[in-house]
Amino acid sequence: MTTNTFSEIPASMRAIRLTDPQDKTSLELQEVPTPTLREGEVLVRVQAAGVNRGDLLQAAGHYPPPPGASEIMGLECAGVIVDAGSTNQQPGTPVGCLLAGGGYAEYVAVPEGQLLSFPSGWSPAEVASIVEVACTVVSNMQLAGLKSGDTLLVHGGAGGIGSFAIQYAKALGATVAVTAGSAEKLEFCRQLGADILINYREEDFAELLKNKCNVILDIMGAKYLDQNVRALAMDGHLVIIGMQGGVKGELNIGRLLSKRGSVSATALRARDLADKARIVADTERLVWPLLVDGRIKHQLHTTLPLAEAARAHELLANGDVTGKIVLSVA
Amino acid sequence: MTTNTFSEIPASMRAIRLTDPQDKTSLELQEVPTPTLREGEVLVRVQAAGVNRGDLLQAAGHYPPPPGASEIMGLECAGVIVDAGSTNQQPGTPVGCLLAGGGYAEYVAVPEGQLLSFPSGWSPAEVASIVEVACTVVSNMQLAGLKSGDTLLVHGGAGGIGSFAIQYAKALGATVAVTAGSAEKLEFCRQLGADILINYREEDFAELLKNKCNVILDIMGAKYLDQNVRALAMDGHLVIIGMQGGVKGELNIGRLLSKRGSVSATALRARDLADKARIVADTERLVWPLLVDGRIKHQLHTTLPLAEAARAHELLANGDVTGKIVLSVA
Ligand SMILES: NC(=O)c1ccc[n+]([C@@H]2O[C@H](COP(=O)([O-])OP(=O)(O)OC[C@H]3O[C@@H](n4cnc5c(N)ncnc54)[C@H](OP(=O)(O)O)[C@@H]3O)[C@@H](O)[C@H]2O)c1
Ligand SMILES: NC(=O)c1ccc[n+]([C@@H]2O[C@H](COP(=O)([O-])OP(=O)(O)OC[C@H]3O[C@@H](n4cnc5c(N)ncnc54)[C@H](OP(=O)(O)O)[C@@H]3O)[C@@H](O)[C@H]2O)c1
Repeated sequence: MTTNTFSEIPASMRAIRLTDPQDKTSLELQEVPTPTLREGEVLVRVQAAGVNRGDLLQAAGHYPPPPGASEIMGLECAGVIVDAGSTNQQPGTPVGCLLAGGGYAEYVAVPEGQLLSFPSGWSPAEVASIVEVACTVVSNMQLAGLKSGDTLLVHGGAGGIGSFAIQYAKALGATVAVTAGSAEKLEFCRQLGADILINYREEDFAELLKNKCNVILDIMGAKYLDQNVRALAMDGHLVIIGMQGGVKGELNIGRLLSKRGSVSATALRARDLADKARIVADTERLVWPLLVDGRIKHQLHTTLPLAEAARAHELLANGDVTGKIVLSVA
Repeated sequence: MTTNTFSEIPASMRAIRLTDPQDKTSLELQEVPTPTLREGEVLVRVQAAGVNRGDLLQAAGHYPPPPGASEIMGLECAGVIVDAGSTNQQPGTPVGCLLAGGGYAEYVAVPEGQLLSFPSGWSPAEVASIVEVACTVVSNMQLAGLKSGDTLLVHGGAGGIGSFAIQYAKALGATVAVTAGSAEKLEFCRQLGADILINYREEDFAELLKNKCNVILDIMGAKYLDQNVRALAMDGHLVIIGMQGGVKGELNIGRLLSKRGSVSATALRARDLADKARIVADTERLVWPLLVDGRIKHQLHTTLPLAEAARAHELLANGDVTGKIVLSVA
């Protein structure tokens, strides 16, 4: 490490650790070694870290970090570069970061390709709320080829992914249908631009949207597989990014074939560095201008101190959150 | 109709009809009206018509022609333009034709976008043996993004689709694995260039190819769904074009997600005119040079007179055919 800010970096830092692997609520601030940098990484002092459902899964033991990634939770953050390592980055630069882990901490090592600039006017908490959802939605909408005039169905429209996906798809010129579990959440979706509002507790989205959806962004997996295929339009593409409704489901191949449909299932976290760098660059190119001109707004539900990670997880798990929760790091 | 060859065209022609809808073997040559042309169609005097498994399905009542298509069987043919209709085509031009139906006849009406030139040195029977499989394989390999260095698994490598897919993928620079039901058929596949030979009666292809296949071209549907997903490599794409092993199967979404995999199911016949014209143009551009320079050879198993369509269907159904059967039209 060779930068002028090296002297400011302590050898240890505070980070959230799961102290009892059997208890997903045992999230405590502990002293741990500050990360060391690998080739191509910079050290970022974290100001805010986004909370994602993936973090809840990791705390519950269901979503281990990919090989080589930090054991610490936290899939996105905003902060300031304090050590540029072997890169040409400038210490002092504010950055948003896509992480394979490590965001729930005072410092995190970040591959250079996973840094994003600060959209002007955005705070660290706001930036930390949008990196992961933006990269996830952009990469999956590219895969599915969403374009102006298409109809997109977003399940869980009021969640972190959903609230971003609605706005992004509207900015692209798509018609957006959403599902959510309450009238309040649907109203939240409507205000974000959603055109077709479906309360999944009361209505069958597959009937309402039969053969109509060019693209579906799904987080339910098995539970919605058959209904999603029914809702697909000709040449439609179902992209599954969550399995909140189970892992194995019956696929009606005959129905899929009659529509020339596609089903993909993807995860961002396990992608390799080159893939992530491409997605981050595409996201900055496609989304950041929309953040600056206000066509996409952050959906920051609330900010809690890092020490209250357990409470943040509880809030998200309880399902009363619209948009995102962010942890602020002193 | 305004062309100089009009006088040669009789008002009626002979074509194969299914005389008893309950009996798929009741295929007889009958006198029927010669087709009339719609806008953008040409009339082709058929010299040879390819036999496809789709024709067997249609004779059995399982694969009705799409709306507006001829009721007569026959998904491809080769012949000579005898009436250019409203197009700028030249009467007398030899052509290969992709058809939504109507090939088992003396004359067929063909949308201009579904005409292909004759590769030099190829006979009508040879051309009639390759149009449908070439268009099917090209369009599906484009969808799946098959490229040099990839591993492709082709199920039923010795069949009409399979024998073309092997050669096309080898010409693209892929490694090709095939399944077939006998040592003889596997030897046929080897001679076409297949690298990995799997007898599906004796070995489990999913074990042998676990996580190895970038693309799979499947004709079995439900029966192979789970095994195919096992065989997919990271970012792999399973394309299902046949359901010889059933229509509904269990999809392990968790496994698919861990590979960022995709499953598509497609059919060529029901595509609209613009789509087919694009596929036909791509096929002529990508495949026809390989036919001329001999890198792809026709796999004409046998030629029978049109009147023996029933016998042709029986041969294909019995499963002793490698490559294609073609009906010759006097
Ligand atoms: N594969 C990837 O790369 C990737 C990346 C990020 C996120 N994800 C996944 O995407 C999902 C959403 O993540 P998130 O961070 O946005 O979580 P979140 O904010 O907690 O959102 C979860 C959403 O699920 C909705 N939901 C629950 N049951 C539903 C049902 N039966 N029908 C429709 N919606 C239902 C909830 O809506 P109601 O409250 O209205 O019920 C809620 O909006 C999670 O499964 C997460 O693991 C995957
Ligand atoms: N969707 C579309 O656009 C489209 C277009 C053309 C064709 N197709 C479909 O593609 C399939 C092949 O068509 P084709 O004209 O090539 O028919 P074909 O020449 O009769 O070939 C059928 C093949 O299926 C193989 N097969 C049977 N059971 C198998 C098993 N358990 N595992 C692996 N292979 C098995 C046979 O191999 P063995 O003899 O070695 O058992 C045979 O080679 C048909 O289902 C057809 O309907 C679809």
